[in-house]
Amino acid sequence: MVKQKENLYLQTKNNTGDNYNKMTQLTYKDFETLYQPLISSNDAKRKLNLFYLVNGLPQNLKCHENPVYLAGGMPFESMFPVQEIDLQIRDNPGSLTDDQVLSKNYSITKIKMYENEEKIKETESTKMIPVNSMIKGPSKVGLSYALQYSEVAGFPELLELTRQIITRINKPKYDMWDTLLTCGTSDSLAKICDMLIDDNSTMLMEEFTFTPVLHNLQYSGGKHIPLKLNVTSDQSKQGIDPEYMSDLLDNFDKKYPGLQKPKVLYTIATGHNPTGLTQTMENRQKIYDICSKHNIIIIEDDPYGYLQLPKYDESNPLNNPYSKGEISVDQYCKEILIPSYLTIDNDGRVLRCETFSKVGAPGLRLGFITGNKFLIDKLTKLTHLTVRNPSGVSQAVLTNMLIDMGQKYQALPGNENAPFIDGWIEWCMKISGQYTTRRNYMFQSLYEQPAFKEKKFELIEPTCGMFFNTKIVLKPEWSKKETKRIMDYLYCCLLEEGCLAVLGYKMTIDEDFSLERANFLRFTFAKANTEQLFKEGAERFSNAVERLFNEYGVDEKFDLAPQGFVE
Amino acid sequence: MVKQKENLYLQTKNNTGDNYNKMTQLTYKDFETLYQPLISSNDAKRKLNLFYLVNGLPQNLKCHENPVYLAGGMPFESMFPVQEIDLQIRDNPGSLTDDQVLSKNYSITKIKMYENEEKIKETESTKMIPVNSMIKGPSKVGLSYALQYSEVAGFPELLELTRQIITRINKPKYDMWDTLLTCGTSDSLAKICDMLIDDNSTMLMEEFTFTPVLHNLQYSGGKHIPLKLNVTSDQSKQGIDPEYMSDLLDNFDKKYPGLQKPKVLYTIATGHNPTGLTQTMENRQKIYDICSKHNIIIIEDDPYGYLQLPKYDESNPLNNPYSKGEISVDQYCKEILIPSYLTIDNDGRVLRCETFSKVGAPGLRLGFITGNKFLIDKLTKLTHLTVRNPSGVSQAVLTNMLIDMGQKYQALPGNENAPFIDGWIEWCMKISGQYTTRRNYMFQSLYEQPAFKEKKFELIEPTCGMFFNTKIVLKPEWSKKETKRIMDYLYCCLLEEGCLAVLGYKMTIDEDFSLERANFLRFTFAKANTEQLFKEGAERFSNAVERLFNEYGVDEKFDLAPQGFVE
Repeated sequence: MVKQKENLYLQTKNNTGDNYNKMTQLTYKDFETLYQPLISSNDAKRKLNLFYLVNGLPQNLKCHENPVYLAGGMPFESMFPVQEIDLQIRDNPGSLTDDQVLSKNYSITKIKMYENEEKIKETESTKMIPVNSMIKGPSKVGLSYALQYSEVAGFPELLELTRQIITRINKPKYDMWDTLLTCGTSDSLAKICDMLIDDNSTMLMEEFTFTPVLHNLQYSGGKHIPLKLNVTSDQSKQGIDPEYMSDLLDNFDKKYPGLQKPKVLYTIATGHNPTGLTQTMENRQKIYDICSKHNIIIIEDDPYGYLQLPKYDESNPLNNPYSKGEISVDQYCKEILIPSYLTIDNDGRVLRCETFSKVGAPGLRLGFITGNKFLIDKLTKLTHLTVRNPSGVSQAVLTNMLIDMGQKYQALPGNENAPFIDGWIEWCMKISGQYTTRRNYMFQSLYEQPAFKEKKFELIEPTCGMFFNTKIVLKPEWSKKETKRIMDYLYCCLLEEGCLAVLGYKMTIDEDFSLERANFLRFTFAKANTEQLFKEGAERFSNAVERLFNEYGVDEKFDLAPQGFVE
Repeated sequence: MVKQKENLYLQTKNNTGDNYNKMTQLTYKDFETLYQPLISSNDAKRKLNLFYLVNGLPQNLKCHENPVYLAGGMPFESMFPVQEIDLQIRDNPGSLTDDQVLSKNYSITKIKMYENEEKIKETESTKMIPVNSMIKGPSKVGLSYALQYSEVAGFPELLELTRQIITRINKPKYDMWDTLLTCGTSDSLAKICDMLIDDNSTMLMEEFTFTPVLHNLQYSGGKHIPLKLNVTSDQSKQGIDPEYMSDLLDNFDKKYPGLQKPKVLYTIATGHNPTGLTQTMENRQKIYDICSKHNIIIIEDDPYGYLQLPKYDESNPLNNPYSKGEISVDQYCKEILIPSYLTIDNDGRVLRCETFSKVGAPGLRLGFITGNKFLIDKLTKLTHLTVRNPSGVSQAVLTNMLIDMGQKYQALPGNENAPFIDGWIEWCMKISGQYTTRRNYMFQSLYEQPAFKEKKFELIEPTCGMFFNTKIVLKPEWSKKETKRIMDYLYCCLLEEGCLAVLGYKMTIDEDFSLERANFLRFTFAKANTEQLFKEGAERFSNAVERLFNEYGVDEKFDLAPQGFVE
């Protein structure tokens, strides 16, 4: 593969005398050459033969311009039981301090039966093939369209908006990229694994991670290779250790004899789950270069990237630059958001997964994948054969909401020429502001706790996301091999004290590999909703830690199962 | 397998002395014994280890009654940008004659932030495991719930309503059944194939069918075995020929040497696509018995079953018993709807797929599977690992709409004690009434056409669904081997005359097997929306048939490719 790829580099170089520029203009054929060898063998079984399409019509055939449509089984719009959907879109997310669950400031966005007359005419006309052309400006979706059968890859309007999101924030280095709508990132990851993983394929994964992706990997017959994580407050070192990774791949046969060399890296590089870590751009470049050298596809899962948290200020714990209006949308896009791997993607080897669950709503079940057109086409075909397009109702709600936000934003004085998508991005900023407030309350309370002052636990401040870790400073006399049992004991104390968190070792992909680094709990500040709750949570956690230190190995109250907690 | 099953019969018989009654009370273990051998080998790879669940807690642990929730990454409800959704639910589908796309008679159904306070309290409380308990009465879904992460199998409220649909119309013969929400029947079928089909598995399918399911089969490595269909106006013989099927299975090794014996039958028994045929209950019983004998799982795909069409009355073409109010909901349920295979399912071997696409709206992307709990559990696990729950917005729209319809129906005088779900079933009846009107206009026009009177084509009247076939009566001098070329020629004429239909041979699973029976086109009366359009469609079709008879083999206008039309 590497050889093949070098040839490709060479070829393009010869053609233009300009290696870099040409690399950013990789063709579909280039992607095929590079990545077809990484596609799972199942893919060859994916036949798609749409019974309502015909090709090879005689050249002299003169199709009637206005045929009667008696072909596809699409119900007529007046048979849909819902004839209008009105949405109340809030101007601002509810804030923690005033517990504003319902906002008085909102706009009504209507999803009406015939919002987009032209589209209706098109589906009723000669065309048997659904129209999937790019639309020019933003255009609201009508209910007649939302409730009907529609394009498998997603509504063109919504796809266009996702492309605007990518273009505004994470423009890929090459031109031939596209997006595909999915039913959320769970769906995206299942599809990507299905596309790439065969029996005995291997995938590199951060040792602590969002473990459900491990199930997708195993389900397709693949095996995981854990990558050591630097779980540290030193931001320059956070995340995957590039040296460890480079060494591992250069000496893979020695380290994992008998296993296939990894062809995929799954990474949550920004606001990592469960650790809250964010990888520096410098390290991303190193990791990208390693992947390029070994022809590894990068799955970048980025659910939390929009939730950027300014540095916690101990001298002014409740400081929140968002709420003070100190950050413009442009700054947020260019200076605050951490660029995706897409922005350094010379070879088109990155598949970026975004979701509307964290800054929109999980119940929409909407996300999207960005990547080179060859891989996006493969994923679209797979979508055709499985779940088909995500809910039209969800898509219409999201599309019209994004358009509403864009229109309102551009209508503000001075914003006439702002990118349309900035309306949505401003909402993401507002949500970041809310999470900053939550983080502030949480950390203020935690830093005040006796167990923290007594150095019984450490806090790793997240710069991003909704999670953070509390790392238990184990007593010197406790064996590191006991880590799991110690954490189980702490967990029992937490349940009695009344504070729910997630055990670090439950989020490892290989317990043995990571045991000694699993002395942490994952907390979130997403769901609790009053200052008081954060305070109580912190106090209860501190009490639980104190109990651990007083009781464990000395005066234990619980009879722990030797195997730890199992599902 | 058959032996094992007989043992099972025997065992239960010995226990009770009553074979039949006990068979209807098959246990989970019985299903496992019967069907585990039919589960694909992939299933063993499906591990599901939820990181947020713990088991094996010490017995003396006293969980705090009101813990602070700092565990799961669920956004707080006030961060959802939508805070209310209002739906206009029409009282009646728009009728063909007045082209009533927007109805003046509708009710407003609101999806409000905290509709169901109790549920909110539950998700905020101690429970880390999502609540999946059956609810008692119908209960609307709140937006805080609809937009949040939710149960993978579907909203409990909506699942309960699907169980009411099944109980009211197609109550299974055994008790331990359940339903699973899916993203429509495409999703259902992909999942079922994934669960059952291995490399080299075989599946029985009607020779003409909804071909995308063939892709699902092939995708999992399976092979199809076509079953001959009786495409005839004689309703007692329509559909799968039980004798052909019985003979095929009894002599399978001879007929298909080297292939595995089929373990699944995929059938559209009611309002079949593309033929419009409906299998009699007598034949269903025969087919069921054959499947029982050979331990074959039956996938019953029933998208069109609710669209029951009264017999077309040539002396009174526009007669429509629905619109005259001659049919009660109870009659519709008990006398008119064709009972599912579930109602004769002694062994729990039926997986019934329903969709809300045809009587609700396709854009909802909602359907459900009914089957024995063992198989439903397997499918639920698969759902966990792939697409997760269908859109919460779609589920909330459908749930609250069904509840709205139920409440309005029960509020009518005399309906106080009617089953709640009859509100929805009445809607299905109204839709059937609309399709009856459309069928009437379409057939009235077709029977008047010269080409029909000249016996150049036959019509097979559908008793159900939205499709019907026009069977071309081939000239004696035309070779049956030319069927494909003849139909291609007709198709070209149709495109020039201006009438879009689907070629029968494009809906075969094995062109060679079915070529001689592929002299038909599939038409639908679903999408056209005026009397005039049906009339024009019929005239254009008749003109095209006339052209075929005048031009084919004599004075051909088109240069047809020898391989026919390909995708």
